[in-house]
Amino acid sequence: MEDAIENSATTERLCSKNVKALFDTVEAFLFDCDGVIWKGDKLIDGVPQTLEMLRSKGKKLIFVTNNSTKSRKKYAKKFQMLGVTVSEEEIFCSSFAAAMYLKSINFPQEKKVYVIGEEGILEELEVAGYTGLGGPDDGDKRVQLKPNFMFNHDKSVGAVVVGLDQYINYYKLQYATLCIRENPGCLFIATNRDAVGHMTDLQEWPGAGCMVAAVCGSTQKEPVVVGKPSTFLMDFLLERFCIDTSKMCMVGDRLDTDILFGNNAGCKTLLVLSGVTNLSALQDPSNKIYPDYYTGKVSDILKFLGS
Amino acid sequence: MEDAIENSATTERLCSKNVKALFDTVEAFLFDCDGVIWKGDKLIDGVPQTLEMLRSKGKKLIFVTNNSTKSRKKYAKKFQMLGVTVSEEEIFCSSFAAAMYLKSINFPQEKKVYVIGEEGILEELEVAGYTGLGGPDDGDKRVQLKPNFMFNHDKSVGAVVVGLDQYINYYKLQYATLCIRENPGCLFIATNRDAVGHMTDLQEWPGAGCMVAAVCGSTQKEPVVVGKPSTFLMDFLLERFCIDTSKMCMVGDRLDTDILFGNNAGCKTLLVLSGVTNLSALQDPSNKIYPDYYTGKVSDILKFLGS
Repeated sequence: MEDAIENSATTERLCSKNVKALFDTVEAFLFDCDGVIWKGDKLIDGVPQTLEMLRSKGKKLIFVTNNSTKSRKKYAKKFQMLGVTVSEEEIFCSSFAAAMYLKSINFPQEKKVYVIGEEGILEELEVAGYTGLGGPDDGDKRVQLKPNFMFNHDKSVGAVVVGLDQYINYYKLQYATLCIRENPGCLFIATNRDAVGHMTDLQEWPGAGCMVAAVCGSTQKEPVVVGKPSTFLMDFLLERFCIDTSKMCMVGDRLDTDILFGNNAGCKTLLVLSGVTNLSALQDPSNKIYPDYYTGKVSDILKFLGS
Repeated sequence: MEDAIENSATTERLCSKNVKALFDTVEAFLFDCDGVIWKGDKLIDGVPQTLEMLRSKGKKLIFVTNNSTKSRKKYAKKFQMLGVTVSEEEIFCSSFAAAMYLKSINFPQEKKVYVIGEEGILEELEVAGYTGLGGPDDGDKRVQLKPNFMFNHDKSVGAVVVGLDQYINYYKLQYATLCIRENPGCLFIATNRDAVGHMTDLQEWPGAGCMVAAVCGSTQKEPVVVGKPSTFLMDFLLERFCIDTSKMCMVGDRLDTDILFGNNAGCKTLLVLSGVTNLSALQDPSNKIYPDYYTGKVSDILKFLGS
């Protein structure tokens, strides 16, 4: 009973005995990327072989990442660079989700979008036909707090999108704050609220949750979240793929985003311990989010099916 | 009844009829600075004459500001530059409060303190005998998120102090986050949580509440707050001045810091409308914080006493 999860009779450790039942009932595997497929720019062992096997067995693969720093196009290139063939249409990143959210609410094309975040958000906004401001362009801007200095912002900004931004600065924070506080009806959209993430292979770094919280702190408003665990992305996926959620399996390394997202949608869920969550965090009495299965890493699916 | 405050039978508009009662029962006037004494680097009309009159009548003056960017010494210089004589001993800024908090808990001198904030915090730490890191020194530092890059932090940091920092960046956020998440027992101290403040005379800017929220977002921890409305500062004031709080009047422009601080401590409270709060915010049904009195600006005390 060493692997039993307290308070959760239903969480099973993935093994050669139960993997077949999961495999047979699932038509689409949804994978988180950071900590599941790769860490930083390094693939996790056995990922290409596992994805290849799943494809060969007719499983649909979908990659769902909260990381907003890249567009779908750039993610497809990253996969390619790492030797894995994945098409743009299989990728759902939170930068894309932000643009799709604006589309879904018929956000007017003549309104602008201010971005705290990186290239990915601006690229997806452009693909969707919107005009983005800020982001990398404002990374080097400084302000001077001196008498008679007036910080001006664009009054036609109708939405602020906040995601992970390694070039966060006071200029951007003031810009976003003024838009949300002063432009009537201005939306506040968060790509996601991950506290930290494996931005490099060796350690975790503040995630979008850090930048989003900063803007919550200055505006005293709460954002609409479009990434995991919000259901916006799942509703979008369902519309596109027409697969019942009970035939999907969400594979991720985070309880509060991936597993919660999968559980909320009625998917099967598989926690992998190759990212930010270790076994003791899963078993901690304070944890209230349980996957259906957990295992060390994605390639265990291949290993257990083969054994 | 145009000035009646809904839901609060006890809030009175200051006038020539009630000013004497307030004046006679109060021995010490506690003033917030931004939005009360000055806006940015400009004195608010009539402040010097009012302070002079209060001193001449034997009233004790205390200046209590949540702005942590300066030390007491620098605030005394600012007052002097603006033509008002105020001594260091009359100033209680949140940078000083942070250092005094560490003293009050016997924080070990051999441990270091990482600072997201400006010179004021580092200067007060130094005066108190502590070694501060970060702050302005880390204002130009950048990180590169690339494979094999390891961000190292000082394992002897035992406390992180977060205040207003116009040079906030990802380097500082990662440094503070690593200290709080990885250094055993590391304290997380906020100078204050003001959402915005009049950093310049013409407009508001994100306040310490923005930087503090960012660190809450990445660490998922809550800080100890030492500035208003926390009672730490009031306990400290009481010990130093031995004046009963019922004989103090807190004069401020913010309901959620100044007035709440005064009310919690049992002081009389006077809201001035020369800063971030206007009459409609005070009268808004969502507001639950009421001062004993409100008026346009500090010099109304002088005007009403004279009339």
